[in-house]
Amino acid sequence: MRTGRFSDVAAEIAQRYSQSVSFDWRLYRHDIAGSIAHAAALAHAGILTSEEREKIDKGLREIETEIENGKFEWDQSLEDVHMNIEAALTKRIGVAGAKLHTARSRNDQAALDLRLYVKAEIGEIRSGLRSLQSALLHLAEQHIDVVMPGYTHLQRAQPIFFAHYMLAQIEAFERDADRLSDCLTRTDVLPLGVGALAGSTIVLNRTFVAGQLGFSSVSQNSIDAVGDRDFVAEFLFCLAMIGLHLSRLSEDLIIWSTNEFGFVEFSDAFSTGSSLMPQKKNPDMAELTRGKTGRLYGNLVSILTTVKALPSSYNRDLQEDKHALFDSVDTVKAALEVFAAMLPELTVNRERMERAAGDPNLLATDLAEHLVKKGMAFREAHEVVGKLIARASEKNLALDNLSLLEMQEASPLFGEDVTTIFDARRSLEKRGAIGAPSPENVAARIEHWRRLLDQTVAAGVPPA
Amino acid sequence: MRTGRFSDVAAEIAQRYSQSVSFDWRLYRHDIAGSIAHAAALAHAGILTSEEREKIDKGLREIETEIENGKFEWDQSLEDVHMNIEAALTKRIGVAGAKLHTARSRNDQAALDLRLYVKAEIGEIRSGLRSLQSALLHLAEQHIDVVMPGYTHLQRAQPIFFAHYMLAQIEAFERDADRLSDCLTRTDVLPLGVGALAGSTIVLNRTFVAGQLGFSSVSQNSIDAVGDRDFVAEFLFCLAMIGLHLSRLSEDLIIWSTNEFGFVEFSDAFSTGSSLMPQKKNPDMAELTRGKTGRLYGNLVSILTTVKALPSSYNRDLQEDKHALFDSVDTVKAALEVFAAMLPELTVNRERMERAAGDPNLLATDLAEHLVKKGMAFREAHEVVGKLIARASEKNLALDNLSLLEMQEASPLFGEDVTTIFDARRSLEKRGAIGAPSPENVAARIEHWRRLLDQTVAAGVPPA
Amino acid sequence: MRTGRFSDVAAEIAQRYSQSVSFDWRLYRHDIAGSIAHAAALAHAGILTSEEREKIDKGLREIETEIENGKFEWDQSLEDVHMNIEAALTKRIGVAGAKLHTARSRNDQAALDLRLYVKAEIGEIRSGLRSLQSALLHLAEQHIDVVMPGYTHLQRAQPIFFAHYMLAQIEAFERDADRLSDCLTRTDVLPLGVGALAGSTIVLNRTFVAGQLGFSSVSQNSIDAVGDRDFVAEFLFCLAMIGLHLSRLSEDLIIWSTNEFGFVEFSDAFSTGSSLMPQKKNPDMAELTRGKTGRLYGNLVSILTTVKALPSSYNRDLQEDKHALFDSVDTVKAALEVFAAMLPELTVNRERMERAAGDPNLLATDLAEHLVKKGMAFREAHEVVGKLIARASEKNLALDNLSLLEMQEASPLFGEDVTTIFDARRSLEKRGAIGAPSPENVAARIEHWRRLLDQTVAAGVPPA
Amino acid sequence: MRTGRFSDVAAEIAQRYSQSVSFDWRLYRHDIAGSIAHAAALAHAGILTSEEREKIDKGLREIETEIENGKFEWDQSLEDVHMNIEAALTKRIGVAGAKLHTARSRNDQAALDLRLYVKAEIGEIRSGLRSLQSALLHLAEQHIDVVMPGYTHLQRAQPIFFAHYMLAQIEAFERDADRLSDCLTRTDVLPLGVGALAGSTIVLNRTFVAGQLGFSSVSQNSIDAVGDRDFVAEFLFCLAMIGLHLSRLSEDLIIWSTNEFGFVEFSDAFSTGSSLMPQKKNPDMAELTRGKTGRLYGNLVSILTTVKALPSSYNRDLQEDKHALFDSVDTVKAALEVFAAMLPELTVNRERMERAAGDPNLLATDLAEHLVKKGMAFREAHEVVGKLIARASEKNLALDNLSLLEMQEASPLFGEDVTTIFDARRSLEKRGAIGAPSPENVAARIEHWRRLLDQTVAAGVPPA
Repeated sequence: MRTGRFSDVAAEIAQRYSQSVSFDWRLYRHDIAGSIAHAAALAHAGILTSEEREKIDKGLREIETEIENGKFEWDQSLEDVHMNIEAALTKRIGVAGAKLHTARSRNDQAALDLRLYVKAEIGEIRSGLRSLQSALLHLAEQHIDVVMPGYTHLQRAQPIFFAHYMLAQIEAFERDADRLSDCLTRTDVLPLGVGALAGSTIVLNRTFVAGQLGFSSVSQNSIDAVGDRDFVAEFLFCLAMIGLHLSRLSEDLIIWSTNEFGFVEFSDAFSTGSSLMPQKKNPDMAELTRGKTGRLYGNLVSILTTVKALPSSYNRDLQEDKHALFDSVDTVKAALEVFAAMLPELTVNRERMERAAGDPNLLATDLAEHLVKKGMAFREAHEVVGKLIARASEKNLALDNLSLLEMQEASPLFGEDVTTIFDARRSLEKRGAIGAPSPENVAARIEHWRRLLDQTVAAGVPPA
Repeated sequence: MRTGRFSDVAAEIAQRYSQSVSFDWRLYRHDIAGSIAHAAALAHAGILTSEEREKIDKGLREIETEIENGKFEWDQSLEDVHMNIEAALTKRIGVAGAKLHTARSRNDQAALDLRLYVKAEIGEIRSGLRSLQSALLHLAEQHIDVVMPGYTHLQRAQPIFFAHYMLAQIEAFERDADRLSDCLTRTDVLPLGVGALAGSTIVLNRTFVAGQLGFSSVSQNSIDAVGDRDFVAEFLFCLAMIGLHLSRLSEDLIIWSTNEFGFVEFSDAFSTGSSLMPQKKNPDMAELTRGKTGRLYGNLVSILTTVKALPSSYNRDLQEDKHALFDSVDTVKAALEVFAAMLPELTVNRERMERAAGDPNLLATDLAEHLVKKGMAFREAHEVVGKLIARASEKNLALDNLSLLEMQEASPLFGEDVTTIFDARRSLEKRGAIGAPSPENVAARIEHWRRLLDQTVAAGVPPA
Repeated sequence: MRTGRFSDVAAEIAQRYSQSVSFDWRLYRHDIAGSIAHAAALAHAGILTSEEREKIDKGLREIETEIENGKFEWDQSLEDVHMNIEAALTKRIGVAGAKLHTARSRNDQAALDLRLYVKAEIGEIRSGLRSLQSALLHLAEQHIDVVMPGYTHLQRAQPIFFAHYMLAQIEAFERDADRLSDCLTRTDVLPLGVGALAGSTIVLNRTFVAGQLGFSSVSQNSIDAVGDRDFVAEFLFCLAMIGLHLSRLSEDLIIWSTNEFGFVEFSDAFSTGSSLMPQKKNPDMAELTRGKTGRLYGNLVSILTTVKALPSSYNRDLQEDKHALFDSVDTVKAALEVFAAMLPELTVNRERMERAAGDPNLLATDLAEHLVKKGMAFREAHEVVGKLIARASEKNLALDNLSLLEMQEASPLFGEDVTTIFDARRSLEKRGAIGAPSPENVAARIEHWRRLLDQTVAAGVPPA
Repeated sequence: MRTGRFSDVAAEIAQRYSQSVSFDWRLYRHDIAGSIAHAAALAHAGILTSEEREKIDKGLREIETEIENGKFEWDQSLEDVHMNIEAALTKRIGVAGAKLHTARSRNDQAALDLRLYVKAEIGEIRSGLRSLQSALLHLAEQHIDVVMPGYTHLQRAQPIFFAHYMLAQIEAFERDADRLSDCLTRTDVLPLGVGALAGSTIVLNRTFVAGQLGFSSVSQNSIDAVGDRDFVAEFLFCLAMIGLHLSRLSEDLIIWSTNEFGFVEFSDAFSTGSSLMPQKKNPDMAELTRGKTGRLYGNLVSILTTVKALPSSYNRDLQEDKHALFDSVDTVKAALEVFAAMLPELTVNRERMERAAGDPNLLATDLAEHLVKKGMAFREAHEVVGKLIARASEKNLALDNLSLLEMQEASPLFGEDVTTIFDARRSLEKRGAIGAPSPENVAARIEHWRRLLDQTVAAGVPPA
């Protein structure tokens, strides 16, 4: 924005460098909504006649339609989405357009557009999380009784249900939804009306504007309002966390789909081949998603770095908030969509899972707990079973192939009933504490999530 | 933890590399509290007699006292805080100690200790934020009517009150407190009782344990519970944001304390000199704090990187969560403490601020709005005033030294009343919209924060 | 790439998610150059007839022209730049095209294209650094005898020459050029010919291919060659460091262009105004550049995160290397270009600088060294002068306005000659150690850089 | 450092916050070496008598011995390692000590100590890399003819030698060594003698000092020299890259040591068990190392953030460079040491590897290349073999169990000789291009590295 004060036009190279319309045009809908609300406030304050206000409304809506139809000509010499739309409006309706920017700065206007954008995208992404959770839940329901090894340190640990694994994923994504909801609360604050950093001598009714635009509250300090990008950083953090969770889910699925594990197989429609090796079928969607964690983390670092040690209020550095923001939003939405579509086509290889879950070593802890129930202190039982494991390994036997005699040598507490231990399903039945994978618990959690997801789907966009 | 299964002792180098007790000993209080609650649950479940339980309680409390008195001997060959305390207990009380780890894994135990630690530190840091806000508010109150230039792009923009600036800082730190409060909700979930990743065949009452330890809820999925470090990442993000806000405040104060600005001066007690240059008095506390943003951001990146693409449930990588966590906590607490102590000693140079605020260019927007009130469209008024600025600059005159005639050449709407514009204080009086810096608004916000801060101070540790 | 092995087409959503042609099309020139060299090797190995090879060459060059003229139709269903060009070639020339991918995988092909791209861009950016250094040097030459205060901790420290400051900047950017040169050495290694990860049973002459494409060496391990993105990470680190240096230069210029400092003024052509405040003239180019450090750091974090803990050799995650790479390259090139154009138009306000440099406190160290030369130990001298500073401050006097008597009270070593100390220019003349800002040193360094820069400009693109 | 200028002592809290001696004491050896060289220069310049210089030398060496024996009392009120040693010296030897800081500032002194430290640690870490490479090479030599599947996308791709994999790792760590060597060149520049930022009126011979301390060159600009931390950032980047490479190696080993892969087994001495599950043997060293990538990345981000947008020359923020630096150095050295000790004890399960490598699908590409050699275009051959894969899969047959007739239906080019294709070892023999895994190539590279590593080990610490 250059007016009477400047003796010279901007250098072409400076203009190209500093323009933002090539990317912030995406905010046009929010910009127009904001201007319509602002015009209403100006009319109330007597700055605009009601006729002028109507002209502005109509003009802006026409421009919006033009943009949506791809007919609007964006002009980089007008710097940004704000000046492009204002200039087009004034060209179209004359002096009323030239009044629109009264008591407004691009500082509060840009903050407004960004907050409206983030609010809208939080809704979309919460919705995407719901779809992903539905896909995960569906897998749990479909394969509710499939037993598989649970891993810690990627080493076989104890038997679990495949469904219990899927429910674990749902929990993690639920925390993401919660975080977004909290972020929304802090985003849902109207910045418009604070001007450049010190309000205006023309006083507008900001509560009225907030009502028009659907904001729950109004910013209480003008300096803070124009310089605050906390909501962007917090949103980018929330998106980075979704990326983190997707990367862990991807890692598991990639490992499970190796020849060696063979637990799952991606459908052809969500796999790709090799340009060289004809036999290859690669889990590319999961790999790409795991890889995209990089840009989600990078975008978070980007905004944090940009704002670090900035002087208070508005500085032009803040223009750099958008690139990272748009990129993370697009990335997360696409990833959620792909996973929600890909998971229903996942083949679960029950036979491979259950064969692996049949490894008697997975029940070593049960064996120790068996001794505990007979009165042995756990630390001692742990030691006894550890020695049995070593003994079996030396003799190249499976743990459940040791004779009762050998077991009794280790502890006289072992009796005939020891054979009942080596049954993964029976082991699972005993695991009834809250959060543990007994069949009842798994079924109850499936039921819990089914109800919750059906409700929110029924309700449309999930309430924040 | 190595028992019967291993034929060999750990290599000394491996032990040194993998031990965590040299840093996780800090968690001892939480570890002991957790063990006492766990023992209570084991007693309820009939695994411990009430006598054994009492022995455990007594033994653990004695160990706690020993640790607090610096008499406890930590042993790195016992790996971590958990095994050190358990081993000391068993040595002290015998077999009852060997029963304590029944139906518990270090996976859920470590998660528990960490959650208790984060919960406690969120309280401390919220308290530190309150102290900082009090110091900022006190400055606002003390200098309530000092006018200074507001800056955007670090260029003089419009007059503000110094107090309005301080209130802006309070707003930002309030968002930090809010974020911590939300983080607390997600941290306040009991992980203990989920075992390694699949619960136990010995079923404990987790709701009872949550009650004992003051948790509001209980984790609902065992796999998720042992592998989840979201609460650490979220907490580190909250701390990074506090660092961001401190870095911006520091930047302002450093710039304001230059010879050239001369707006503020740090007290000798919070300044340092130069080893070479005898005249120097440097704003080191603000600089160090700005610099520490680096480690707060770095620690956030650290935890995000560590957890990226980990297989689900527990992996030893997670041990690396503590270094970053402890460092950020210590850093933020120290910085908050220093600022809360340093700000009350800040000298505010009213004369330099008000002289700078007397720059008539700061009222150029008022001049344009003056024309708007007389009926000119804002864009036109902006252009007219821009030209006056250019004219004054050419003639090497201050804007308010242009003659009325010259102004009328630019617009006939100018009249004698234009002289009333060039008064920063009067300009501020007109800025009455919510969030704008009119004297009434500033006083009302000071009143608002005074009430709120007095309440929370009265209430002791702020409620989350 | 999906052939006979797949029973199903890719889901449209999967295709959209995994395609890279929308951004990797930028590599077309390198892809075509690589294919031409590969065809030559295939011909040598007898896989292609010389006629087939000629058809391939001609076909590829036609495609290149089409792309350059914007006539080529990119097809996202063909995934990437590689398959798009191969498919277009085969369509155009038939079976010879279908032979091109013999003994080649996209894994080595993508690595090749990326290395060729990075090699080219290192040249461009080194060239951009030279232009920036020239602009900085020009400022030094133009204002060679302007004295200004040097700052540490942003507090006035000692007098320097403005030219000495500019030379400091040149040094920093020279390290960037050096780093890029080292990075080039590690990038300049041919990956083509290692296939997917294990070479091929059809053996090609890789040394010949390296010669064709101008590579200095040939990768020695096929697994490493397809999975290695070190050169991308190192390049992004080099670019982040350029960003760091630009951010510090920007910070100085922004502070110097405040009303309060008034040391420099940006030209109108490289400043922007405010949409609200008619008087504003903001240093937006410097601010934007400072802000862009965020994306340069973010892009570095992005690639590091993506590659972290990847299994060896090629994984699809690596496709995510390009976004960060292209963005950092574009960002740095634009910033260098803007600074090289903006600096020559910078107004240097000699009068404001020299007035500030006249502050006698800047010579406090000289005063102490004056005492040292008369035999006092430096620590004592430092203390003596410190007290004089305090004395002067109490009496509200400038340091050089203390009477000789007062000075002698502090130390009898002071004599009439003390008055010669308070002359910034004379102080500078004494600073003759290597690297210190004596006029001779400054002139010699200007001479040094002038010679070096003239040479490299004369030589065209700087040799790496 | 507070002398006459200050009317007040530092607040205790400020002192605690700003002291660095609790961590920078580690630099004492470098600080003392620097002071001895500085005293020599002061003596040459006539500031010190030769007697004073000798006193200083002797005093400093005594202090060094005290520190090494743990007898030195560090005093936090003296801020840093520099002032602690200077104060102790002056206390010990009187006025000569008070002369030591002539023509020196902590700004150049701190830069000196840090550069000496980084130089020394680069040597150590290069040495650690050599040890790791030796361990990798030893594994390659021991198992030179073990065939295993090579993976891309973690899916079986083509046969490789286990030794070829190990050689790939050596290549990556060699790039790390190279990068460190380049970093060393840029670190090996003497900063001492530039004072606070503008040299001194007491001119010292910096070339002489550089010679005393073993620096190859002398910094050429005083402002740059005190504010430059490029060498720290570059070093931290190099260390982050080592972490990246270790994380990938760790990931492979963790996956290979699962029950499902079963390719390798860690020795008991480098594994740990579970506190709960008696059968567990976890690859903790590899997991911890993978996890530590987080802190290495975090430390890089930390220094980059701290220096971002700092005003030129020295600012106190720079004190924050040490924490990240020391932590990354300690982390990388420990990780290299552990891997070098752990790898020789790795059990390589030849039988499991070769069984997996017997999967005939690994030779699908060979089959296509077989057709190419008979004249078919590669793209067609790829399609033909893809269909055979699909056919075999449908019929639940291994690829090499399809009848010749079935193969000929797909292409009449197949003949009896097709059976020779399905032999992994024969396939490897054909892969003779540079970098490909033919037995000859693998042997030659082993020979290459053996010679190089023996040389550098013979030469002691590797030359940079």
